[in-house]
Amino acid sequence: MTIQPAVFFSLLLASLSLPSFSLTPPSEKFRAADWAVLHSSRSDQRHVSSRGIVQTMLEKLRPACEFSPDMAPKDFPAWREKVRKAMQQLMKFPPQADIPAPVLVKTVPREHYRVEKWEAYPFPGAAVPFLVLLPDNASDKNPVPVLFCIPGSDQTKEELAGETSPDLDQPSVQQPGNNAMAFHYVRQGWAAIVVDNAGTGEEGDAEHAAGRSSHDYENLARFLLEMDWSWLGYTSYADQCILDWVKTRPWAQKNHIILSGFSLGTEPMMVLGSLNPDIFAFVYNDFLCRTLERAKTMTMPNGRGVRSAPNSIRHLIPGFWKQFDFPDIVAALAPRPVICTEGGLDRDFQLISAAYRMAGAPDHFQYHHQPRFADPAQRWHGSQLPAGLDRDAFFRFANVDPRNHFFKKDLVIPWLKTLLDKSDNKN
Amino acid sequence: MTIQPAVFFSLLLASLSLPSFSLTPPSEKFRAADWAVLHSSRSDQRHVSSRGIVQTMLEKLRPACEFSPDMAPKDFPAWREKVRKAMQQLMKFPPQADIPAPVLVKTVPREHYRVEKWEAYPFPGAAVPFLVLLPDNASDKNPVPVLFCIPGSDQTKEELAGETSPDLDQPSVQQPGNNAMAFHYVRQGWAAIVVDNAGTGEEGDAEHAAGRSSHDYENLARFLLEMDWSWLGYTSYADQCILDWVKTRPWAQKNHIILSGFSLGTEPMMVLGSLNPDIFAFVYNDFLCRTLERAKTMTMPNGRGVRSAPNSIRHLIPGFWKQFDFPDIVAALAPRPVICTEGGLDRDFQLISAAYRMAGAPDHFQYHHQPRFADPAQRWHGSQLPAGLDRDAFFRFANVDPRNHFFKKDLVIPWLKTLLDKSDNKN
Repeated sequence: MTIQPAVFFSLLLASLSLPSFSLTPPSEKFRAADWAVLHSSRSDQRHVSSRGIVQTMLEKLRPACEFSPDMAPKDFPAWREKVRKAMQQLMKFPPQADIPAPVLVKTVPREHYRVEKWEAYPFPGAAVPFLVLLPDNASDKNPVPVLFCIPGSDQTKEELAGETSPDLDQPSVQQPGNNAMAFHYVRQGWAAIVVDNAGTGEEGDAEHAAGRSSHDYENLARFLLEMDWSWLGYTSYADQCILDWVKTRPWAQKNHIILSGFSLGTEPMMVLGSLNPDIFAFVYNDFLCRTLERAKTMTMPNGRGVRSAPNSIRHLIPGFWKQFDFPDIVAALAPRPVICTEGGLDRDFQLISAAYRMAGAPDHFQYHHQPRFADPAQRWHGSQLPAGLDRDAFFRFANVDPRNHFFKKDLVIPWLKTLLDKSDNKN
Repeated sequence: MTIQPAVFFSLLLASLSLPSFSLTPPSEKFRAADWAVLHSSRSDQRHVSSRGIVQTMLEKLRPACEFSPDMAPKDFPAWREKVRKAMQQLMKFPPQADIPAPVLVKTVPREHYRVEKWEAYPFPGAAVPFLVLLPDNASDKNPVPVLFCIPGSDQTKEELAGETSPDLDQPSVQQPGNNAMAFHYVRQGWAAIVVDNAGTGEEGDAEHAAGRSSHDYENLARFLLEMDWSWLGYTSYADQCILDWVKTRPWAQKNHIILSGFSLGTEPMMVLGSLNPDIFAFVYNDFLCRTLERAKTMTMPNGRGVRSAPNSIRHLIPGFWKQFDFPDIVAALAPRPVICTEGGLDRDFQLISAAYRMAGAPDHFQYHHQPRFADPAQRWHGSQLPAGLDRDAFFRFANVDPRNHFFKKDLVIPWLKTLLDKSDNKN
C-alpha cells in the first residue's frame, strides 16, 4: 500500500517475471484523437472508466457561488458576501492570536527610496522575510499609497524589488527589467511591500544549494494538504499577517492599499481581495481563465494515453471547484477597481463587466488583451469551450500568449495614477 | 497563475533571456547529506524555509485518534467508535439512496466453481464491473464464507481471479500464480468477490489502448480532490456499494464476510473495516508502516536538492494525518481477526497487539515478517525512526522487502481455515 507503485512494479516485474497486466493487447496504432473526448461505448451510455465517471461529475458540477448576470442588483452584496464566506472556509486560516509584530532587520538606501528588510512571524518557529520599499517622499506626515506585490512562480521578492541579494548587501540592479514590479511602483512615489510565495527564494529548500533555479513546491503542498490545508491557504495566510501589519503603518494611506499579483501571485491576490474588503484596487497581471472549465475540456491524451494534468498540486484547494471559478472571484471584487493585463476570453470579461455594472461602477473594471489577440477576429467568441483540447489548443482558445507574459507596467502604472488622482480629487 | 510553471518559465527563459532567478550561486559541490535533516541555521532556531516550517508542523502533529496502550480497557469501544466516525468524515461517502441493484452480466463455468460478472451502479451514469467466484458447493441452502478481494496497484480483478479477459470469453489461467488471490480462495470452497480499484483495468482510461501496462490515477485523484473528495473515498465508496449487496446474497454466510487486501488494496480494506463492524476478519497483505512518520523522516534530498515524496496523490486524503496513522486503524479493528503477512516494525505490531489484548482477543492478531527479516537481529528495534532517511533507508528500517511482495496464500489460507473452523465449532 505504501511503496511507490511504479518502483514496486518494476521491481516485481524484474524479479518475479510476472506476466504483463495488460489483458488486452494494444491496438496496432494508438490514435489520441479517438480518445479526445471521454465517451461511453455502451448502448446505455454508462461509463465503466473511472475517469469517464469523474468527467460526468465535473460536467454536472455547478459552483455554489457562480456569478449570474441575471441576479437582481439588490442581491449583489449578499452574493459577494457568500463568495467571501466560501473563500474564508476554503482557506482555513488559523487564528491569528499571539503573533509577534514584524521586526525590521535591515535598511539600505537606494536612489529616491530605501529598502527595508523585515521579518514576520506568522507561525511558531517561523521567520518570514519581506521587503518594504519606501519612497523618499513617504513619511508619517505624508502617507503614500501602498502596492502589495505578490510574485509569480519561481520569482523572488528580490527580483520584484530590483535587488540582487537577500541580505541587500549587493548593489541593486542598474536597469531593472519589466518584472521588477515593486521597483517600478516605488519610483512612482508609492510604497511597495514585496513578499515571497511559500517555498520560493529565501523560503525555498535545498534546491538552490543544488544549483537549480526553479523551486520545489510539491512536498510542501502535499504535506499541507494531508494536514487539511493547502499551499494557497498557507501562502495567503502568511501574506495576510504581513498585510495586517501594513494596514497599521503610519506612512501608509489606509484607503489606498492595492494588491498587485503576477502570474501565480494572482491566486493569493484573489484570496486577499475576497477576504479584505478594505483593499482599494487590484492588478491582475496574468491571463484570466476558468480553471474548472480548463480541467473539463483538456481531455486530449498524449501518445502514451495520458490526458493533460491541469497543473501542479500547489494549485489544489480541496472543494474549490464546488464554490466558484476564477471569473466569479474577480466579479466579487466589484465595485473595487481591477485591471486584467494579459487577456483571456471576452466571455469572461463580459461576465465581470456585468458585475461591475451591477455594482454601480462600470468603469472600475479594465482589461487588455495580449497584442497577439488585440484584433477581435483573432479571438474565439463562443460561450463554452469544446472538450478534447490539449494544452496548446486550450491556450489558443483562451487567447494565451505565453511568450508575452511579463509585468505590464506601461498599462498598469497609468491606470493606477488615474485611479489615485481621481480618488484624491474626491477626498 | 494557470500556466504550468515549468512550461512557462522555460518559454520565458528561452524567449526573453531573463536572468536566472538564482540569486545565490550554487556551492561548488552540493552534498545531500548536509541537508538530510531540516534544521534552522539561525541562532533563534526559527525556520525561513517554508518546508522547514511545515516540517515543524508535522513534528508537532499528534493525530486525534492515536491508540494509546495506556488507555483504560473500558474506554476501548468508545475510542474505536471515534476512529470509525473520523474515517466516516474523511471518506465523505455520498448518500446511497436510489442506487439500482447490481445486474448479472455473464456466467462462465470453471473447474469446481463458476465465475459471474456483475455490474454495480454506485454513481449516476456509471457501470462498475466486478467478479463473483462461486464454488460448486455454495448454494442458498449451503451458504459459504465470503472473501472480498481488493487488488494492489495496477493489478486487475481478472488477475486476482485467474482470468485472462474482462469478458470471460478466453480460457482461464492454467496454473494461476500466487497473486491470484480470489482463485486460491474459491478453490477452498469459499466465495470470492473481486473488485477493481478506481482507474484500474476495465475502469482504466486510454493508457491500455496506448500500450501501457500501468494505470493513470493522477488526474482522477486530482479531480476528485478538487471536488472535495479523494481517490480512496471514491474507490471505497464503490466497494461499499458492492459489499452492501454481498451482505444480502443468500449464498453468503453473513457472519463470515472477510476483507482481503493486497498492497494498495489494504487502504480500501482498512476503510471498509472501520466502517463495517459486521466484517468477520481481515487479510492485510502488505508491509505495515506509519504513513505520517514516513513522510516526516524521509527528508534526505537527492542530488538535485529534492526531498522524497511520500507517494502519489492517489494516497492523499486531506486531513488524514490529523486523525490517525495506519497502525491506529488496524488497532481499531480489534477484536476482529487480522493477519499482516509482510512485516513492518515490531514496535507497531506490539502496539496493535496491545489493542487486541485490551479488546480481550490477544490471539486474533497475527503478523509475519518477511523471510529476510525473520531473524530479530536483522530488525531495527527503536521507538522512533530518525529523520534524514531516503527511500532505501526507510525501507531498510521498516523491514520492507519489495522483492518478496506477493499474496502469501501459504500463510493466509491456513490462518483463515483455522479461524473459520473455530467459528463453526462455536456456532
